[in-house]
Amino acid sequence: MDEGYSLQALADYTGSRLQGNAALRLYAVVSIEKAQAGELSYVRNAKYRHFLETSQASALILPPDLAETYRGDCLVSQNPYLAYAKAVTLLHSSPPPNAGIHPSAVIAEDAEVADLCSIGAHVVIESGTRIASGVIIEAGCVIGRDCRIGENSRLYPNVTLYPGTEIGKRCIIHAGAVLGADGFGFAPDGKSWFKIPQVGNVVVGNDVEIGSNTCIDRAAMGSTIIGDGVKLDNLLQIAHNVQIGEHTAMAACTAVAGSVRIGRYCQIGGMSAIAGHLDITDNVVVTGTSLVSHSLTKPGVYSSGTTVVDNAVWRKNAVRFNQLDKLARRLQELERQLAVLQDKGSN
Amino acid sequence: MDEGYSLQALADYTGSRLQGNAALRLYAVVSIEKAQAGELSYVRNAKYRHFLETSQASALILPPDLAETYRGDCLVSQNPYLAYAKAVTLLHSSPPPNAGIHPSAVIAEDAEVADLCSIGAHVVIESGTRIASGVIIEAGCVIGRDCRIGENSRLYPNVTLYPGTEIGKRCIIHAGAVLGADGFGFAPDGKSWFKIPQVGNVVVGNDVEIGSNTCIDRAAMGSTIIGDGVKLDNLLQIAHNVQIGEHTAMAACTAVAGSVRIGRYCQIGGMSAIAGHLDITDNVVVTGTSLVSHSLTKPGVYSSGTTVVDNAVWRKNAVRFNQLDKLARRLQELERQLAVLQDKGSN
Amino acid sequence: MDEGYSLQALADYTGSRLQGNAALRLYAVVSIEKAQAGELSYVRNAKYRHFLETSQASALILPPDLAETYRGDCLVSQNPYLAYAKAVTLLHSSPPPNAGIHPSAVIAEDAEVADLCSIGAHVVIESGTRIASGVIIEAGCVIGRDCRIGENSRLYPNVTLYPGTEIGKRCIIHAGAVLGADGFGFAPDGKSWFKIPQVGNVVVGNDVEIGSNTCIDRAAMGSTIIGDGVKLDNLLQIAHNVQIGEHTAMAACTAVAGSVRIGRYCQIGGMSAIAGHLDITDNVVVTGTSLVSHSLTKPGVYSSGTTVVDNAVWRKNAVRFNQLDKLARRLQELERQLAVLQDKGSN
Repeated sequence: MDEGYSLQALADYTGSRLQGNAALRLYAVVSIEKAQAGELSYVRNAKYRHFLETSQASALILPPDLAETYRGDCLVSQNPYLAYAKAVTLLHSSPPPNAGIHPSAVIAEDAEVADLCSIGAHVVIESGTRIASGVIIEAGCVIGRDCRIGENSRLYPNVTLYPGTEIGKRCIIHAGAVLGADGFGFAPDGKSWFKIPQVGNVVVGNDVEIGSNTCIDRAAMGSTIIGDGVKLDNLLQIAHNVQIGEHTAMAACTAVAGSVRIGRYCQIGGMSAIAGHLDITDNVVVTGTSLVSHSLTKPGVYSSGTTVVDNAVWRKNAVRFNQLDKLARRLQELERQLAVLQDKGSN
Repeated sequence: MDEGYSLQALADYTGSRLQGNAALRLYAVVSIEKAQAGELSYVRNAKYRHFLETSQASALILPPDLAETYRGDCLVSQNPYLAYAKAVTLLHSSPPPNAGIHPSAVIAEDAEVADLCSIGAHVVIESGTRIASGVIIEAGCVIGRDCRIGENSRLYPNVTLYPGTEIGKRCIIHAGAVLGADGFGFAPDGKSWFKIPQVGNVVVGNDVEIGSNTCIDRAAMGSTIIGDGVKLDNLLQIAHNVQIGEHTAMAACTAVAGSVRIGRYCQIGGMSAIAGHLDITDNVVVTGTSLVSHSLTKPGVYSSGTTVVDNAVWRKNAVRFNQLDKLARRLQELERQLAVLQDKGSN
Repeated sequence: MDEGYSLQALADYTGSRLQGNAALRLYAVVSIEKAQAGELSYVRNAKYRHFLETSQASALILPPDLAETYRGDCLVSQNPYLAYAKAVTLLHSSPPPNAGIHPSAVIAEDAEVADLCSIGAHVVIESGTRIASGVIIEAGCVIGRDCRIGENSRLYPNVTLYPGTEIGKRCIIHAGAVLGADGFGFAPDGKSWFKIPQVGNVVVGNDVEIGSNTCIDRAAMGSTIIGDGVKLDNLLQIAHNVQIGEHTAMAACTAVAGSVRIGRYCQIGGMSAIAGHLDITDNVVVTGTSLVSHSLTKPGVYSSGTTVVDNAVWRKNAVRFNQLDKLARRLQELERQLAVLQDKGSN
């Protein structure tokens, strides 16, 4: 980052059209309000047009309509947000840990750790596990028996993989995540709960990101499957035998019950709940705090829940909610009686 | 698993009646769609009767009505789900870690670890703690001062027990769970929050299972109590001084506020919230995403919440919810006015 | 605790007025139902007046109105709950771990650990990090590069701080919490999600408490900021670029989406969700399980959600909720038609 990059290099890397001084050097990407000389920023759309006049940034990433009248140096992109993401990647990549195995790591004799891996302090890797080239496993992670981790994946500290978990290439798993714990399966025997051994595993595709303290349970039988390119935020619960299709993104604190199948390119808002054994087709958007109680067979945007108002108002409305069917029946009765009256009136 | 078990052995272990070839050998339990020769599967009820004709499994566990007309080898059980759970237990039990204390574990001099325990790499066991025979503590767990862990309990990796936590026999605690952290207790002093020291502990009965990353706070004074046979899923929050009765099961992401008492044999659905200081009697079922805002004194099934619809529809309904009391009053006024009209009409 | 404290000493420490025997020695604070001889308890208000006659406690903390007619030994306080909290602090403080660095801890050569710190077993402290005097870091914590931890802060076991995280003085961070993981930021590139590097950090003020398994994400750019005196319960999700004002308290399982600004002295109930980019002013109270979907610009108490009823009743009402706008329009139409009838009638 010390030497920065030329605007030309940034245009090339971000796939943008250069407008202005190709040799201009940029050293950081900074938000539009705070950017100073030597820094690059971006404006996503015309709503933020006023920043074009006030920003101190040396160069901006702009959509074509804003770039047209802009006199400063800029990168012109149909997708300024994506170009911004790429510029940040170029200017702010932090060096990965050095390759090598920390002497405090405990690695089973028959586990395989490929070249160019970085295995942190106090990591545990158990018997039969295979770690591919370029994998980074940070301090305190515990990798159970017979796991697989694909090339260039990274596990942040204190992640736990239960035995048999398979992770693809270029995945990122954040601190405290737990993959492969037993699904919640019990058979009632009349007096207590008999534990159903969870003998499946978790299989994660390539290019998946999993947030901190997220839990993905192993399948009862078979596999819980997270497709390629899936992005999971923090504190998610993914129950046993769930399948999540490619490139679906799920925001924090959402819970998916057992055996749910979610399609590709879905977006699930935070703190939503998806009831067990449902199917959600591709390209479904569920807004935050929704309860998905039935399968969603058509692409679209789905919602449930209620939104905050003054507590005194809410109290009354919450009471009325619990009378709602009765109110609807009273409405129906009124309509009937009014029709009778109207009938009389017209006779 | 290599040698499998005879159908007779499986009948004995699962408490089922054998129908067919007692010597038939089975090597695995597999789901009905996927089972092949040498494998056992099950059909719970007549709804899945069609699988009886198509399944490639060598034997099935069936309820009596389905077994009656079935010509293949089968185990007949009044509770096929329970028999299936037992068959999985027999055929798929994975060997526990070998007994022994990993040399990297740090165990206080005055801590007691009984025979036949397995203490994993980088485990920490602090002063005054007593671990009974047959306990398995996996890598990275931290067991604070003066804890007790009963016979044959198992802690998966990276579990934290705060000082004074007591765990019964045959418990299973999944990775990342935290037992005994301070309850959320503060007294306002006008300017800031004064911390109320949480001087109680957590006491867990026998045969309890606790899911990954679940948090159970220590009591402010006295004990937070989890009864025998309780099953807690992942990412649960159990606040200080909560008491959960025997054999109650709670699904993932549910939060129980301080001093709640939950009875025996309750089932609490996922992502529910139970407000503080409430009493919930025995045999209560709460469906997922419910808000329990008052005590539940009668057994039964309770629910709250709303369910997903198309976002455009929801937006209108959510607005109406916040007008609900006004709508109900308008309805009441209409009824009044209609009665006046009817009165006039009948005069 | 063995020698206890005199009632006089307790009066001084808690800022209460002594009434009775100044030399009386107390050895513990115990709840009013269970307290015995030698123990102190408290009664918050007149609602619990009956305990004054039945309690076996040797002394009580009482508000002035109850103290007036009480004949036993007592401490009189305008804020008995706060006095109780202080009494517990005096009588029940457990000794902190001894200062020193456990030999199994792995500390980078250029990391700085001040005097009087206690660094537990298997702790990892990475390059460039500075730990101030009196800090306690318990077993299994991983502190990334270039972190700062202020004087007398305490991290319980298995906490992860990502690089660049800054913690103030006298903070308490409970087990399994993760500070500084990547915010959930991706730009769609048409086919998949392009990761936006999260190059900011997390900055935590002084006197902050953070609950177990809570996640606070680093900012995309700049800092996620937790103000002085903030109290966060367990399993909270604080997304990137959130700012939380001083002395705000948030109960368990609540999720705050990206770039939200919460004011000072707010209280947010458990399992609430706050949508992204909103502003919440000072002194706002949000009750549990609320969805904050718009900015809250005035102090007050806000709520949303519905509360449990019998499942059969709820099912009908939940269906009606999804017809609510139609019901409201039918009501409106009825009002119109009734007005027409009334008009006719009066002619």
